[in-house]
Amino acid sequence: MTMASRLLVDVHTHVYLPRYASLLRSRSTVPFIRTNTTADGLSEDRLLILENEPSGGRPVGPQYWDREEKLKFMDKHGIDISVVSTANPWLDFLPAAQAQTLASELNEDLEQYCATSPSTNSSGPYKIKRLYGFGLLPLVPEVSTTSVLRIVNQIASLPHLRGLIMGTRGIGQGLDDEALDPVWAAIEKAGLVVFLHPHYGVDGSAWGDKDNGHVLPLALGFPFETTTSATRLILSGVFDRFPNLRLLLAHSGGALAALSSRLASCIDHDPRAASRLKHDARYYLGKLYLDAVAYGPEELGFVSDVISRSTGYEAGTSISKTPDRSLGSQRMFFGTDHPFFPPLEPSEKWKSVTENLEAIALVQGWSEEDKAGVRGGNAMSLFNLRE
Amino acid sequence: MTMASRLLVDVHTHVYLPRYASLLRSRSTVPFIRTNTTADGLSEDRLLILENEPSGGRPVGPQYWDREEKLKFMDKHGIDISVVSTANPWLDFLPAAQAQTLASELNEDLEQYCATSPSTNSSGPYKIKRLYGFGLLPLVPEVSTTSVLRIVNQIASLPHLRGLIMGTRGIGQGLDDEALDPVWAAIEKAGLVVFLHPHYGVDGSAWGDKDNGHVLPLALGFPFETTTSATRLILSGVFDRFPNLRLLLAHSGGALAALSSRLASCIDHDPRAASRLKHDARYYLGKLYLDAVAYGPEELGFVSDVISRSTGYEAGTSISKTPDRSLGSQRMFFGTDHPFFPPLEPSEKWKSVTENLEAIALVQGWSEEDKAGVRGGNAMSLFNLRE
Repeated sequence: MTMASRLLVDVHTHVYLPRYASLLRSRSTVPFIRTNTTADGLSEDRLLILENEPSGGRPVGPQYWDREEKLKFMDKHGIDISVVSTANPWLDFLPAAQAQTLASELNEDLEQYCATSPSTNSSGPYKIKRLYGFGLLPLVPEVSTTSVLRIVNQIASLPHLRGLIMGTRGIGQGLDDEALDPVWAAIEKAGLVVFLHPHYGVDGSAWGDKDNGHVLPLALGFPFETTTSATRLILSGVFDRFPNLRLLLAHSGGALAALSSRLASCIDHDPRAASRLKHDARYYLGKLYLDAVAYGPEELGFVSDVISRSTGYEAGTSISKTPDRSLGSQRMFFGTDHPFFPPLEPSEKWKSVTENLEAIALVQGWSEEDKAGVRGGNAMSLFNLRE
Repeated sequence: MTMASRLLVDVHTHVYLPRYASLLRSRSTVPFIRTNTTADGLSEDRLLILENEPSGGRPVGPQYWDREEKLKFMDKHGIDISVVSTANPWLDFLPAAQAQTLASELNEDLEQYCATSPSTNSSGPYKIKRLYGFGLLPLVPEVSTTSVLRIVNQIASLPHLRGLIMGTRGIGQGLDDEALDPVWAAIEKAGLVVFLHPHYGVDGSAWGDKDNGHVLPLALGFPFETTTSATRLILSGVFDRFPNLRLLLAHSGGALAALSSRLASCIDHDPRAASRLKHDARYYLGKLYLDAVAYGPEELGFVSDVISRSTGYEAGTSISKTPDRSLGSQRMFFGTDHPFFPPLEPSEKWKSVTENLEAIALVQGWSEEDKAGVRGGNAMSLFNLRE
C-alpha cells in the first residue's frame, strides 16, 4: 500500500462559494440568506433553503463560504483532502440563461479555490492538493442541451474539478428523462464522476403536524429522494446505455441497498418493466459508487454486501451465495457532510466526522486495507487525485 | 426444539373477507372492485385501491376472498399456519359509524374463518389451527376513543385473533397522535400484536411521468410510508410510554433499519427532539418485530444486526461492537404478502414465497435453529399459536 492510500479524503463536503453566497443574500425567497438581529442585539445569518423551512432556517457563517474555515475543519479532524461540492439547491431555482452563466463562473471560482489550495504533506511521488472539486451544470428547465454540454466540457477542462454534483430534477422531468442522454454520454466520455445529492425530499405532508425540527426531512426525506432518483435511473435503462457512467450516491445511497431486492421482486412481477432491463435490478447497484455517510458500521457492511453481490445478478450468471464485503468496500468513500451538522458546542469535534470514521473502523469483515481504501485510497483512484 | 417450531408460519398474508369484498363491489370510487369485459368477451374483476391506480387496477379473483384458495396456496408451498389480516385500505375510507360496525362484523367473520379452519398435522402436545387472524380497529377521523377501545376488547376476546392490523393514518393525524395513547395502552395491556402496514406510499409526484406500472409505489412508496410512520412513533415517545407494546412492521420495516443511524445522528443534532427521548433512536428498533419479507438474505441479515445492536444503545450502556444476528433473528417472521404478487404463470410456485424462504435459508450467521425460528418458531411464541 502506498503512502497516498493512507490519506483521509472527504468526498462529501460542501461550500457556498462567495459568489453563490452573495446571490443567496440578494434574494428574499427560498433559497436565501437573511440577516436577523437576535434578542441580544447581535447580527445572525440564517439560511433558508426549503419551502416551509422549520425553525426559521439554520444559522450560517464563514464555515459555509470561507476556504480557511474548510481547511481548519480538515486540520482539526485529520482530513488530508476534500473533494468539495456546492451545497444544494445549486442552480435549480434560476432561469436558464442565469444558471448557465453562473455555472460557468462558479466552476472557474471552484477551480481557483482548489488550484490555490496548499499541497498535502504526502511524501509520495506525486504532488497532491488539499482541495479538489465537483463542478456544477445548469440543469434547469428550458436550458439547451448544447449549453449543458458546453459546461460538461468546461468542467472536464478545469484541472482540479474531477466531477460534478447534480440534484434529482434534471431539466424538470427528473433524471430518467431521455433528453439527458447526450449529457450522460458526454459525462461518461469525459470520465467525470457525478455526485448525486438530494435537496427536495418528499412531500412534507408525510411528516405530520408535530414539530420535529429538521429530523424527518433530513433523516428520511433526503435518503428517500436519492433512492427514488437512483431507482428511476435504473428503471430507465441509463446504466445499460451508459455502462461506464460513474455515479456517486450521497448518504450511502439512502435506502436503495435496503430496498433493492424488493425492487427486483416488484420489477420481476411487472413484465413490461422487466423487459426494458438487461439485468436484475440488483446488478446495477454494483455499477454505483456510494459515500460512507451512513453513521453506523452495520449500515456500511450491509451496503458493501449489496454492492459485491451485484455480479451474481448479471444476466446468465448464477447468484453468488457469499457476498464479498472487501470487494464492495472498494466502491465506498468517507464523507462528512460539512458544514452541515455542526456540533452543539463549537469546541467539540464534529460527530458527523467521528461517527462516520468510527463506523468505518468497526465494519465486520473489512480488512485494514479495505478500511484504508474507504478512508481515502478509493477516492485517490476514483478521482485520480494528483497534480 | 419442539415439533411445533418446525412449522412454517406466514405472518404476512391478506384476505378481503366476503363481507369486505361485497362492500368493495358496491362502490364506484377508490377503493372498489369493478367487473370489466375483456377483449375476448370474458368477465374480469379489477381491484382499484389507489388514487390514480396504474394499469387500470389489478386483476382479483377468489384467492382474495375464498378460504379454500388460501389453504390451497398454503398446501402448495408447505405453509402450515397463516396469521391472516385484512388487506389495505382496511376501513380507512369509511365514516366513523360504518367503520365501527364493520370492524366488529369483520372481526367476528375472521374469527369464524379461523375457528372453523382445519388443524395442523402437528404431533405436539397442543392442537393448533391452520388459520389465526389479525383483527381490525375503526381507526378513522371522528371515531370516539371509547368505540375504538370497545373493538380492542372485542379482538382480545376472540380466541383466534391474536393481534390487529393497522394503517398509518390513525384517526387522521398519523400514529404519533397523543389521542391514540389510550388505544396503545389498551393494546399493550391486552398483549395484542399490532401489524403496521402501509397503503398510501408517498405523494405520487415523486415517481415522475414515466409509466413504470406499480413498481415505484410498491417497491419504494410502501416501505417509505412504513419507515416514516415508525420513525414518527419513535420520535413521539410511544415506545418510552408503552415499553411492552408489540409492533410488527411490514416488509422488514422498509428502510427503517438502513436509516436508523442517520436518524440517530439527526436527532442528536436537534437538542429538542433528543430531549424528548429516553434513548438513542437505535435502541427502539430492538423493541420492534419485523417480518422477513425483504426478498434477500443480505437484507435479512442486516436487519437482524440492527435489532440486536439496539441493546448497546440503551441509555447508560456502552455500545456493543459485535451485533448478534442470532438474537436479532428472534424478532423476525416469515411472510409472503399473499395474495399480492401472484406468479406470471398460474402453475408456478409463487416467487414471493420461494424467494423469501431462500433468503432465510441463505442468511450468513443464522444457525439452523435461528432459521427455524424465523420460519415459524418465533411466530408460535409471539402469537401463542395453540388452541
